[in-house]
Amino acid sequence: MDYKEVITQIYNDVKPLFGQGKVADYIPALANVDPHQYGIAVATVDGQIMGVGDYRTKFSIQSISKVFTLVMVLRHMGSSLWQYVGREPSGTAFNSLVQLEFEQGVPRNPFINAGALVITDKLMQLYAKPKEAILQFVRSVADTPDIYFDTAVAHSELEHASRNLALGHFMKSFGNIANDVDTLMDVYCHQCGIAMTCEELAKSFVFLANRGVNPYNDEQILSMSRSKRLNALMLTCGFYDESGDFAFRVGMPGKSGVGGGIVAVIPGRLSIAVWSPELNPHGNSIMGMETLERFTTDLGVSIF
Amino acid sequence: MDYKEVITQIYNDVKPLFGQGKVADYIPALANVDPHQYGIAVATVDGQIMGVGDYRTKFSIQSISKVFTLVMVLRHMGSSLWQYVGREPSGTAFNSLVQLEFEQGVPRNPFINAGALVITDKLMQLYAKPKEAILQFVRSVADTPDIYFDTAVAHSELEHASRNLALGHFMKSFGNIANDVDTLMDVYCHQCGIAMTCEELAKSFVFLANRGVNPYNDEQILSMSRSKRLNALMLTCGFYDESGDFAFRVGMPGKSGVGGGIVAVIPGRLSIAVWSPELNPHGNSIMGMETLERFTTDLGVSIF
Amino acid sequence: MDYKEVITQIYNDVKPLFGQGKVADYIPALANVDPHQYGIAVATVDGQIMGVGDYRTKFSIQSISKVFTLVMVLRHMGSSLWQYVGREPSGTAFNSLVQLEFEQGVPRNPFINAGALVITDKLMQLYAKPKEAILQFVRSVADTPDIYFDTAVAHSELEHASRNLALGHFMKSFGNIANDVDTLMDVYCHQCGIAMTCEELAKSFVFLANRGVNPYNDEQILSMSRSKRLNALMLTCGFYDESGDFAFRVGMPGKSGVGGGIVAVIPGRLSIAVWSPELNPHGNSIMGMETLERFTTDLGVSIF
Amino acid sequence: MDYKEVITQIYNDVKPLFGQGKVADYIPALANVDPHQYGIAVATVDGQIMGVGDYRTKFSIQSISKVFTLVMVLRHMGSSLWQYVGREPSGTAFNSLVQLEFEQGVPRNPFINAGALVITDKLMQLYAKPKEAILQFVRSVADTPDIYFDTAVAHSELEHASRNLALGHFMKSFGNIANDVDTLMDVYCHQCGIAMTCEELAKSFVFLANRGVNPYNDEQILSMSRSKRLNALMLTCGFYDESGDFAFRVGMPGKSGVGGGIVAVIPGRLSIAVWSPELNPHGNSIMGMETLERFTTDLGVSIF
Repeated sequence: MDYKEVITQIYNDVKPLFGQGKVADYIPALANVDPHQYGIAVATVDGQIMGVGDYRTKFSIQSISKVFTLVMVLRHMGSSLWQYVGREPSGTAFNSLVQLEFEQGVPRNPFINAGALVITDKLMQLYAKPKEAILQFVRSVADTPDIYFDTAVAHSELEHASRNLALGHFMKSFGNIANDVDTLMDVYCHQCGIAMTCEELAKSFVFLANRGVNPYNDEQILSMSRSKRLNALMLTCGFYDESGDFAFRVGMPGKSGVGGGIVAVIPGRLSIAVWSPELNPHGNSIMGMETLERFTTDLGVSIF
Repeated sequence: MDYKEVITQIYNDVKPLFGQGKVADYIPALANVDPHQYGIAVATVDGQIMGVGDYRTKFSIQSISKVFTLVMVLRHMGSSLWQYVGREPSGTAFNSLVQLEFEQGVPRNPFINAGALVITDKLMQLYAKPKEAILQFVRSVADTPDIYFDTAVAHSELEHASRNLALGHFMKSFGNIANDVDTLMDVYCHQCGIAMTCEELAKSFVFLANRGVNPYNDEQILSMSRSKRLNALMLTCGFYDESGDFAFRVGMPGKSGVGGGIVAVIPGRLSIAVWSPELNPHGNSIMGMETLERFTTDLGVSIF
Repeated sequence: MDYKEVITQIYNDVKPLFGQGKVADYIPALANVDPHQYGIAVATVDGQIMGVGDYRTKFSIQSISKVFTLVMVLRHMGSSLWQYVGREPSGTAFNSLVQLEFEQGVPRNPFINAGALVITDKLMQLYAKPKEAILQFVRSVADTPDIYFDTAVAHSELEHASRNLALGHFMKSFGNIANDVDTLMDVYCHQCGIAMTCEELAKSFVFLANRGVNPYNDEQILSMSRSKRLNALMLTCGFYDESGDFAFRVGMPGKSGVGGGIVAVIPGRLSIAVWSPELNPHGNSIMGMETLERFTTDLGVSIF
Repeated sequence: MDYKEVITQIYNDVKPLFGQGKVADYIPALANVDPHQYGIAVATVDGQIMGVGDYRTKFSIQSISKVFTLVMVLRHMGSSLWQYVGREPSGTAFNSLVQLEFEQGVPRNPFINAGALVITDKLMQLYAKPKEAILQFVRSVADTPDIYFDTAVAHSELEHASRNLALGHFMKSFGNIANDVDTLMDVYCHQCGIAMTCEELAKSFVFLANRGVNPYNDEQILSMSRSKRLNALMLTCGFYDESGDFAFRVGMPGKSGVGGGIVAVIPGRLSIAVWSPELNPHGNSIMGMETLERFTTDLGVSIF
């Protein structure tokens, strides 16, 4: 199948939709992004890469980074991880403290902010230099050394981290955070501030479509079973409180970020990354969601 | 692949697990079921049927009936249905009123009790004789006339329906229930009290593995797109607040009931029904969950 | 002190405030009340009665009836009652189900709807003819035989009782309601539909200012200790989720109803009833609240 | 009335109750307090002081300090304060984040931890040296220069402040905290760590029984009206989620702390401070509650 033709067609059809959403504005560094940007990239399990539009422009991956840190921690801890964080959809907004209070500081899943903080906390216990380790891992799966923290974004996040600091201290009060919360927040804001292109993101997720194997160097990053399970988790929890709707309409495992990026996989075939900064009220890229819904429809390749 | 051999092997391996759970005891008619029963049936899209154990014993399908009524209503209302009920995992126990209060009487999805009551309420507006219509539909998809209400179960449910009556009256106070709540409860308790075998259940779900087409009479029950979307909904919401965990461990769309039955599908291939009355604390059959986890592992056919 | 002069002055000052609130509109029988009515009556512990404005017009006492039924049940059950209903402010809106779910069907206090239903349920176990018993009790404390149910209001309430039916069935699911919920609702809607005047209400509450003794016939209705405790309960819980604010601004124990009536007491001195149908968003009479705030300020007799 | 005789009698009757509760153990500095201590002091509006037991032993006043800071801020801000913090009972445990989330960062009242943090935050904007200002105010109302921070307690609190840090950052995320949260926590932990005796506490609260006037120097600390309103607030909110029960059983406005101290007032007459470190599950001193219930019963002076 000619994926390039498919995404080019979608790109042309969806591009007129600019102007329907709102760029994330909780930090200045994101609020100032030009909203009228849009890119798509596809990476296949047999090593092809193709893209359209702004697919080689760097943007802030934000919550997409939660998948990378989860993979890093899962490799070390395996299923012992699940006593510290659940695997169930959250059912409420992505930064809710209510659920945490009723469930004694154990977040529902690793993709809500609270859960991602638990993962980063574990990662800090596994690596002496956690920020360097994260960059190194992402460069490896993306098959390129050209990946860095956008420190302006990271510092801006740190200055507006009240809600995440509240989550961190709250979980620490239940004993579910080991590190100093300020240090944890520094690592977390840096991971969220990683800048990548659609092309790099597509490449970095293709191992999840390839039974856990990085096709660029044949490294088994996760076992086949664990790779499939991670896909299941992305399907049920990857899109905040819009996860059910995304599964219903699109049917691909994936992860979104408030920078406007979304990455999704079709198991056995490919990964696809799309980016456009305008968000819907759930914090997901409007044009990204539309792109992926059309992509599965056009390809007729829903996992269901 | 020799499915009969696979399920026979699983049956023999899992059977020693009797005694780890608790039969549903909220109504006498269910509490008195012999716990040491266990059956598995598989129905393939090309029309094969096979089973093992108590796969021809009738049991109370309970919440599995929610899939049948949803299909019936979706056929008539299409996507206009989704203004009355959501498509998101609930994140809390299956009969929670808290979520309903915060979301103004609109249940999170059609598989929690509140959502299923909304569906049955709609069905009562579509059919003059809703109970007969339900039986007729189930007989048609199960390809057998031998399906009835267990009226002892239905009446026992009606006598212990306080929680569901609360849900019904509560949603009516928000204007999201049109019928008289007592009449609604009568229909609902009857649909939950349908008695079926694993064999019949497997047959009645195989259209969802077959792009919406009933293989026994080639009827297009749902469009291909709608059939896939229903599978997505079962994956994210079919197992109460254990849905995420089931997707993670098993990776099949499906639906469980407190009678101890579970039906699941592998799109493009087959449906599988398993029944054993002992439940885990989430209300799902312990041996059923174990059976399905082994089934996907043995077949290596996760959708992910 | 010349109370007549005080309330006449307040009446003249407050009367221009008509038009700031909204008459209760959840049932037609209340929605049709003329909003521009306003009356005040004072009953002193030494037997004086005085009033101004529409103080001899009957109106629907609604939640004020909760005090009467509580007194009736307390007389029989004493402190054994408190295992079925709490004595703490509810902290949330007066018909919330959330709190009930977290506290296993035990309402926070007898003045929220759920708690009042528990009280009426107990009353039905104490009296063979509960509706007659309630009327008889109210006539006795009000020192007049001329008190009846407004059956038009009662029946209208019954037709719009979805929320209260939800509360009743929900508590029954926890085992905290003994009677049939429909029968309970009939009694409850009748008690809420009692029609009384300000004069009658002031007289019927004066025993709570008089250490539990009805000054009209010297009957000890409640022990002195229990009478004081009931006042404490009215102070902390008598005004829905505006109780704290009422205590802060007015400092009198009292009870309000959505019919626009409020009764309050100054221990050792008097009871005062005020009525005007326009409500604030919390369901309390705007002019009633204003009247009572001025009354304690003018008299300088706060309990604090 | 011979208050000394009354409290001596109560002291002797209640003293055998040692051993029924648990000393606060969330910080080592409090956990190590000898549980078998018990003191009572009374200060009358006409300047008498009397005490029994350990009434001259210093202990950690903890949440009782919330009254002092509230008075300090009320004097400057008046009713403009109430847009930042409510006046309603909280209905849930004293450090709940749930309510804060639903009410957009505005705490229910100044006596739950979240509300007290808002008060201290305001105080920091009013005073350049807030810690010194607090000490100076407390020394003034207690009529003694001998009052200090127990810095061991304050530092221990700071090291175990995760829950309060979560509250602070959470409210800051809603814009309801102006200062740096770490600096705020330093001031807050110091105010909680003030060490006082029963005698000093009774003296420091007597202005609230005296229409706002400090009887030791005739200073009008609060207006009469504001003083009465503060008493109302203590009655409805002063004892965490046991406030309703305390009003019901005791009927005095007051404030408790997890150090085991309670201060309460009888308007127009006196203040009483009692201290014993063993707490009930709500965080209130068991022997303190018992003492105050007996005190009002013996005196027959409930405000109701």
